[in-house]
Amino acid sequence: MTEPLFKKLCLIGLGLIGSSIARAARASRAVQEISALDASPQVLARVRELGIADDAGGDMERALKGADLVILCVPVGVIGAVAKTVAPYLETGAVLSDVGSVKGSVVAQIAPHVPHGVHFIPAHPLAGTEYSGPDAGFATLFQNRWCILTPARAGGDAVEATAEFWKRLGAKVETMTTEHHDLALAVTSHLPHLIAFNIVGTAAHLEQVTQSEVIKFSASGFRDFTRIAASDPTMWRDIFLNNREAVLEMLSRFNADLDALRSMIEKGDGQGLFDLFTRTRAIRRGIVEQGQDTAAPDFGRTH
Amino acid sequence: MTEPLFKKLCLIGLGLIGSSIARAARASRAVQEISALDASPQVLARVRELGIADDAGGDMERALKGADLVILCVPVGVIGAVAKTVAPYLETGAVLSDVGSVKGSVVAQIAPHVPHGVHFIPAHPLAGTEYSGPDAGFATLFQNRWCILTPARAGGDAVEATAEFWKRLGAKVETMTTEHHDLALAVTSHLPHLIAFNIVGTAAHLEQVTQSEVIKFSASGFRDFTRIAASDPTMWRDIFLNNREAVLEMLSRFNADLDALRSMIEKGDGQGLFDLFTRTRAIRRGIVEQGQDTAAPDFGRTH
Repeated sequence: MTEPLFKKLCLIGLGLIGSSIARAARASRAVQEISALDASPQVLARVRELGIADDAGGDMERALKGADLVILCVPVGVIGAVAKTVAPYLETGAVLSDVGSVKGSVVAQIAPHVPHGVHFIPAHPLAGTEYSGPDAGFATLFQNRWCILTPARAGGDAVEATAEFWKRLGAKVETMTTEHHDLALAVTSHLPHLIAFNIVGTAAHLEQVTQSEVIKFSASGFRDFTRIAASDPTMWRDIFLNNREAVLEMLSRFNADLDALRSMIEKGDGQGLFDLFTRTRAIRRGIVEQGQDTAAPDFGRTH
Repeated sequence: MTEPLFKKLCLIGLGLIGSSIARAARASRAVQEISALDASPQVLARVRELGIADDAGGDMERALKGADLVILCVPVGVIGAVAKTVAPYLETGAVLSDVGSVKGSVVAQIAPHVPHGVHFIPAHPLAGTEYSGPDAGFATLFQNRWCILTPARAGGDAVEATAEFWKRLGAKVETMTTEHHDLALAVTSHLPHLIAFNIVGTAAHLEQVTQSEVIKFSASGFRDFTRIAASDPTMWRDIFLNNREAVLEMLSRFNADLDALRSMIEKGDGQGLFDLFTRTRAIRRGIVEQGQDTAAPDFGRTH
């Protein structure tokens, strides 16, 4: 029989991620008890209807009493204010964590409010869907996904316990510095989203090719970008504003490479193009070999 | 009982597309007879083993004799030379077509060789997979895909007959000018591929983030680009060299938009970012509503 890792988990913010943690923590018996807080009374009412927390009454003091794991699952844009509000109720020895997509800014916003004796271990589970809200969550969301921990101030076995918690939810855990997280995600996630938002924006206001044609012929490559560019605008605004430096650095490298590529096309440098396109295949092979892409072959690819 | 639309189809180049046309034309009884030509004796031998053509003996004169539909399914980079070779054997009244991904350059390469009395009707079926060769083809490849015709020189009912042929293979047919085709594909296909090749190239030579980390965390958005950037290097070299003008025009628009987006991030213009990301959602809705994306929801999306 698996022992719970924490006595009481308090989740603050019951959207897609928070409600998925609630479901996964209960299904995996990672904690004994779950309380839920949310700024929206409607969300809390829905959490009570769904029955995914033991206490979703809305009393902050009660929800945090005895909680030895507190996870902030609120947008990055408001996370500092929320941390300040709950800080007075955090108990000595508790782990305070979050699920924000950027970590430097989150640490800067939260750290000043963390009381002495509370472990502060930011986390970023690399999981999500296009949907949001407490109904969108599900217990297997973190299964086989990475969760990155960037411990800010922690002692004893608090980091190990937090890592165990995420593993119990099905995740693979990696620990790194805040700075490294923000650079790694800038290249693997933030830059791709930025480019996708941009190319879809470009296509939307062409005068020579109509929007209906763009949609009609989208299977030719464009479609994959539209899927990415349909991501939540609020979340992405916050990500770009809160990981500005790393995103701008990756963008300037991207631009330098794009200049070189454009110049190859202008000059008709077929060998240069061929060599680049051959190199980019290698990364794809790495992804397929490491089983990072379990999607069916995309027979929509075309040319 | 469905009547054949052409007496004899001669396919030149039996790769993924050519061999799929052979299979689909036979399965749908679009033609009475199929002959196959290919520069590679190995490919022809494989075509004979697969039994997907009535004649794959390698005799050019015999293969083209009596052919009232001839389709060049060879790389754009060699299509002019191939057209010149077969031209003397084309019969009066035959339709000469192709399946190239760019049309302006293809027309420029082929047109000088088309004999008087032969209809020249370039085509571009928007269909393909990551695989190539006569074994990769299948009869349903064109099912529910667009095929764009850009008639260059045709009389009588040659265009209608060619359109019917593609519909018989399961495709939806649209007719447009060469120039419009090349612009529409530059935005829906060529620019997305260019950007994907570029971002994967950028990620491959970072010093701060290792390639293994990029692969590990690729589900966060990057992965979709790697799939596109794994496309055939030869084909894509030819596309960029042969649709240079339209690609460079779309790229300059993309760059101007990217400059504006970068400036919003630099200035911290949250409202501007939010507005752009909200607009880009509309195109996605159009694609989903028009049933252009039948893929399962992507639960790998993350942030």
